[in-house]
Amino acid sequence: MIGGGPGAFIGAVHRIAANMDGEIELVCGAFSSDAEKSKQQGELLHLAQQRIYGSYKEMIRREAELPPTDKMDFVSIVTPNHLHFEPSKMALENGFHVVLDKPMTFDLAEAKQLNEIAARSGKYFCLTHTYTGYPMVKEARQQVLSGKFGKIRKVYVEYPQGWLSTPLEATDQKQAAWRTDPSRSGAAGGMGDIGTHAFNIAEYVSGLKTTKICANINIVVEGRKLDDDGAAFLKFDNGATGVLFATQIAAGEENNVKIRVYGEKGGVQWQQEDPNTLLVKWLDKPAEIWRAGTGYLSSYAKHNTRTPAGHPEGYLEAFANHYRNFALCVQAQMSGQKPQSEWLDFPGIEDGVRGMAFIETVIASGKSDNKWTDFKI
Amino acid sequence: MIGGGPGAFIGAVHRIAANMDGEIELVCGAFSSDAEKSKQQGELLHLAQQRIYGSYKEMIRREAELPPTDKMDFVSIVTPNHLHFEPSKMALENGFHVVLDKPMTFDLAEAKQLNEIAARSGKYFCLTHTYTGYPMVKEARQQVLSGKFGKIRKVYVEYPQGWLSTPLEATDQKQAAWRTDPSRSGAAGGMGDIGTHAFNIAEYVSGLKTTKICANINIVVEGRKLDDDGAAFLKFDNGATGVLFATQIAAGEENNVKIRVYGEKGGVQWQQEDPNTLLVKWLDKPAEIWRAGTGYLSSYAKHNTRTPAGHPEGYLEAFANHYRNFALCVQAQMSGQKPQSEWLDFPGIEDGVRGMAFIETVIASGKSDNKWTDFKI
Amino acid sequence: MIGGGPGAFIGAVHRIAANMDGEIELVCGAFSSDAEKSKQQGELLHLAQQRIYGSYKEMIRREAELPPTDKMDFVSIVTPNHLHFEPSKMALENGFHVVLDKPMTFDLAEAKQLNEIAARSGKYFCLTHTYTGYPMVKEARQQVLSGKFGKIRKVYVEYPQGWLSTPLEATDQKQAAWRTDPSRSGAAGGMGDIGTHAFNIAEYVSGLKTTKICANINIVVEGRKLDDDGAAFLKFDNGATGVLFATQIAAGEENNVKIRVYGEKGGVQWQQEDPNTLLVKWLDKPAEIWRAGTGYLSSYAKHNTRTPAGHPEGYLEAFANHYRNFALCVQAQMSGQKPQSEWLDFPGIEDGVRGMAFIETVIASGKSDNKWTDFKI
Amino acid sequence: MIGGGPGAFIGAVHRIAANMDGEIELVCGAFSSDAEKSKQQGELLHLAQQRIYGSYKEMIRREAELPPTDKMDFVSIVTPNHLHFEPSKMALENGFHVVLDKPMTFDLAEAKQLNEIAARSGKYFCLTHTYTGYPMVKEARQQVLSGKFGKIRKVYVEYPQGWLSTPLEATDQKQAAWRTDPSRSGAAGGMGDIGTHAFNIAEYVSGLKTTKICANINIVVEGRKLDDDGAAFLKFDNGATGVLFATQIAAGEENNVKIRVYGEKGGVQWQQEDPNTLLVKWLDKPAEIWRAGTGYLSSYAKHNTRTPAGHPEGYLEAFANHYRNFALCVQAQMSGQKPQSEWLDFPGIEDGVRGMAFIETVIASGKSDNKWTDFKI
Repeated sequence: MIGGGPGAFIGAVHRIAANMDGEIELVCGAFSSDAEKSKQQGELLHLAQQRIYGSYKEMIRREAELPPTDKMDFVSIVTPNHLHFEPSKMALENGFHVVLDKPMTFDLAEAKQLNEIAARSGKYFCLTHTYTGYPMVKEARQQVLSGKFGKIRKVYVEYPQGWLSTPLEATDQKQAAWRTDPSRSGAAGGMGDIGTHAFNIAEYVSGLKTTKICANINIVVEGRKLDDDGAAFLKFDNGATGVLFATQIAAGEENNVKIRVYGEKGGVQWQQEDPNTLLVKWLDKPAEIWRAGTGYLSSYAKHNTRTPAGHPEGYLEAFANHYRNFALCVQAQMSGQKPQSEWLDFPGIEDGVRGMAFIETVIASGKSDNKWTDFKI
Repeated sequence: MIGGGPGAFIGAVHRIAANMDGEIELVCGAFSSDAEKSKQQGELLHLAQQRIYGSYKEMIRREAELPPTDKMDFVSIVTPNHLHFEPSKMALENGFHVVLDKPMTFDLAEAKQLNEIAARSGKYFCLTHTYTGYPMVKEARQQVLSGKFGKIRKVYVEYPQGWLSTPLEATDQKQAAWRTDPSRSGAAGGMGDIGTHAFNIAEYVSGLKTTKICANINIVVEGRKLDDDGAAFLKFDNGATGVLFATQIAAGEENNVKIRVYGEKGGVQWQQEDPNTLLVKWLDKPAEIWRAGTGYLSSYAKHNTRTPAGHPEGYLEAFANHYRNFALCVQAQMSGQKPQSEWLDFPGIEDGVRGMAFIETVIASGKSDNKWTDFKI
Repeated sequence: MIGGGPGAFIGAVHRIAANMDGEIELVCGAFSSDAEKSKQQGELLHLAQQRIYGSYKEMIRREAELPPTDKMDFVSIVTPNHLHFEPSKMALENGFHVVLDKPMTFDLAEAKQLNEIAARSGKYFCLTHTYTGYPMVKEARQQVLSGKFGKIRKVYVEYPQGWLSTPLEATDQKQAAWRTDPSRSGAAGGMGDIGTHAFNIAEYVSGLKTTKICANINIVVEGRKLDDDGAAFLKFDNGATGVLFATQIAAGEENNVKIRVYGEKGGVQWQQEDPNTLLVKWLDKPAEIWRAGTGYLSSYAKHNTRTPAGHPEGYLEAFANHYRNFALCVQAQMSGQKPQSEWLDFPGIEDGVRGMAFIETVIASGKSDNKWTDFKI
Repeated sequence: MIGGGPGAFIGAVHRIAANMDGEIELVCGAFSSDAEKSKQQGELLHLAQQRIYGSYKEMIRREAELPPTDKMDFVSIVTPNHLHFEPSKMALENGFHVVLDKPMTFDLAEAKQLNEIAARSGKYFCLTHTYTGYPMVKEARQQVLSGKFGKIRKVYVEYPQGWLSTPLEATDQKQAAWRTDPSRSGAAGGMGDIGTHAFNIAEYVSGLKTTKICANINIVVEGRKLDDDGAAFLKFDNGATGVLFATQIAAGEENNVKIRVYGEKGGVQWQQEDPNTLLVKWLDKPAEIWRAGTGYLSSYAKHNTRTPAGHPEGYLEAFANHYRNFALCVQAQMSGQKPQSEWLDFPGIEDGVRGMAFIETVIASGKSDNKWTDFKI
């Protein structure tokens, strides 16, 4: 693991998620650019002393030199955005598969470069857009792709949070500090942090690709340097349209990602507040409540569930699904086998490139007086 | 009553609502431009033969000639949009108070003219934007206006329907036919029919006034002549922004109007699916569930409730609240008394003018390549 | 109307409900045993002076003498329980149909007597068990009776309230005073007031008849004279069992009647908090959300709805449905026609007798050391 | 681990839960009484060959002989009920702390014996009643114990399932087979399997102790040998009463444990369908929605949460909380430190004894013609 030192939120989530199914073991780490902090964290995690590294460069170099049976199989990178590209590049080029936290890079140029590097490397690359790891989000996608709702016409996706309603970055809150700092976060604040999630889930569930964006981007809290609120109209490649919003200043909201997709005959609705339920609506018959853990679901939903119906799984399990599918693919490659299509269903490099293009387009549109900005990669 | 003949939806709603509290009696009507149909409907409603009229002109003329104790006190106009202005004008000019279904007129020019006529007349004018009749919507407004949430920063309002997912107007469905016909509905379809409701509730609850609009307006069902889907970004006079959407092609949706308003410290959320509940959210303490019929509500909510907590009231009661408040004001005027502020809280001519301006602005913005269009009256 | 003077809750509900659909007009009343109060109330309701009576006896006697076209068609009795039997008897014997508030009488003996009187009279009798007036409760019954769930196995019904958590009857709260007074309420407090509703809806939806009861009946608030809390196991005639509870001391609860009925293959769930939704659950496929106002419902549900889907109806409309169906039957009888089966679906004398038997059985069981008490009429 | 071989549900849950926080490592196991199956499972779990044992006796004996730094620290026992007592006894007597699946033993006599053995051993004992591991259930208990609701008056607890609606045990479903077999499950079926959970959470949240029970116990599915449905009235030591039901034949229900506890001034409500929410209701002010992961919760809730508000945790995390708290206590003992009170808040031997007493009392009451049966240990 690279990053995830003391006080980091997402590093701990990655560790629990990777660990969940007993198939992945943390064997080494460079947890902080401060060697002392890295050591501290590594000891807390019961790692062998010699595999706690002072920097990611040291780690990748040294691990690459270990015998195949001893060295790490892949690396998880959970640093702030400006420290995504270099470690990913180095890991791929040294023969390691990569799990990377989103958004993929600091800007689109880096993302496109990384795409090429990854393609050349032949290694697996997983970008942890958590929400597509939920079994009922996978079920939603399968149902939409099946065509049962007819042509898709409308997508609504929203991601309201309230935690940045005050200038939290002015305190010593580590999370708020880097996420609102252009030098570490990139061109976008909230649009990069959570807008990309909303964008990703919209394209994932609808199976559509965005072609144009019209955005309204705001900095609501005085003195903040990056956007903390925004909304966008989307045009999709099949002629459908969408509305996306993401905000961090909806005081009282937690993290209630919600997606609705409508076709000619009906549609689906999912929200993280009630993650094990998929609402399926119909024009002329009763809506249906599809539930995780039941026998009637698609193989994609079933493969990503650990407990029977009525035993709720949550955020950590969704996250763990990405790790598990990634690991199954890595294992398959190592043993020369073909991965199942269910295993391959984790967010990867293309999601990352599109996410970075979303950030650049939405921010450009926010500054433009023209209504529509082309979505280009 | 003018309009509301056989097969009309909103006419029947007006009659039930007016009748609900036993204070208003239907005494005469011109229910259809077809005299025979008008007669039929009047008889069904047990009206005296001589007060069933063949046209609204005849009705207003003849009623105006009756002695004060006999003639109608006010007129309800429930015709399609293109038949709103003339009867309203004639009624006001003949000394009758007016209840009119929304949107107010065929276009903004008519609306502004009617505004002047109403002002000159000294009569009460009620525009039946149903949703602001709900007690918990009134409570939401009172809480927002009280300042307890600090400055308002964000408004989300949505109105998803699915009933026009197919070309229903090609069948003989009367509702669909006139609502999708530019010659009867006006410049907008869905934006006029339900978008104006969303707009009205947004300004009502937030207490803010819209200054600019950026809209994406669509005709989704092939062959339809007016918009059946749309969304808009809103800018408000205090610097806050909003997102509004209204659609009639979200297959499987019924009529789930929903509003969320956020200030610096918290906010409110209401939706018609659960109309007797107001969710009040806070940045740093538990959300609260405020319920209709309880003792802790504002006088505005209490005045508009008939049953104790846990005995749900609904759409007809919300509609009836407008009639009741309007009637209380009319009675007060007739008896020379001053109406209470709670009675005056029904949508009127200003809401109507602003609604027509919304329609014109949102449609203009939909056609424009510029991002923002000024909201002007 | 008999009863329903100043300060009465249910009297006002009856008037709104009767009035809702414009087919019933209040023409006379004896609103209080105090002639002055009766007069006051009658004037508030705009009744003709000569038809405001000082006592129910006077009213029934005088109305009976009026010419058929002038006299009232039926009488609504909304007095406390100890004043149900005599006015009902006198009304039926003088040729008037009767609407009576529940529970039917002061005790079972009276109920059985009234049953005979009603049968002899050939008049319609409606007992206003509100909850079976909701369209989705009617839908639930139709679905259960259709056999689609297989044999019914289990019934859960609950009615939690909290309004009597304190000794409210010690204040001058009129509602609390008579409902907790054995001389006016009868053998039961909460079990009569709301337990009978729970019992009624359980038998109505399940289509089953109770054969045995095991009850735990409590007086929770110190000094109270009648039960304010209780629960009962039920045995039904087909071998199924049930659990019923009703309480008035669940502090914070409003009036959330809820029923769940399970058969071999699935079941139904309805609760008053969300009255326009019927949840239909299945052993091996997704649960379904059936909604009031939609096109796919049974004729029983459709007949009892006024608004399209998504325009919520509530308690007053459910109440009004009983009045409307009763009135349709009365009109049919008056015009010599056969009523439709949907019109006949209102609670009547048999529900009343069974309700009184429930009260006597549940109270007897509460006092008994034996587990089961036979349900006998 | 003892038990948890191929096809076992709860064994896998224990492994994920124990593993979740990276503090517990599975080092050895006797996964089946069939040595071959045990070996198979152990290999799947990547255990060292020499620590995969053919029987629990062998495992405990051999592990006890290993040097302190090498041997296992505690044992998890996840066998069917009839195989709980002997391994637990042997483990405790050989110096191992024990985690045991519920219900504790085959009968109450065994439970009382085990209680004495555990007390003598000085070892920690954890009984995995999952539901009290949820942070919001812990919050509920803390709020009730704080006295803020006044004296507790009423407890409702329910546990509806539908999975045994058909004679599943007649197929080769392993779960159904042993749970409906008196020789492996004990005196109770559903009452032991899920009724004990309901009982445990009721006493946990209310802080009360049961003194009397009146039960109705049923075998609904023909040919089944143990109860699959039941309900009980409860009397508590402070004079409060309760209603409990648990069923496995509510076709369409999953696993929706729900508890409601009411005091004089308000109460709490929690259900597993929405596990991160605690509803707090008040007699005379708005209900409150307390949410997991927020800053305003008690130390007990906070200590048992891994993610910020809005990132749902579920069943596995609740289960893991018991393991984590148990492990923290074991570590504290090993390092000679005093455990924090939050760590000690996991279900233990007393819960186990009371659970077995519940089973015996509820089954005895079910067979009795007397209303009340004393709850005795």
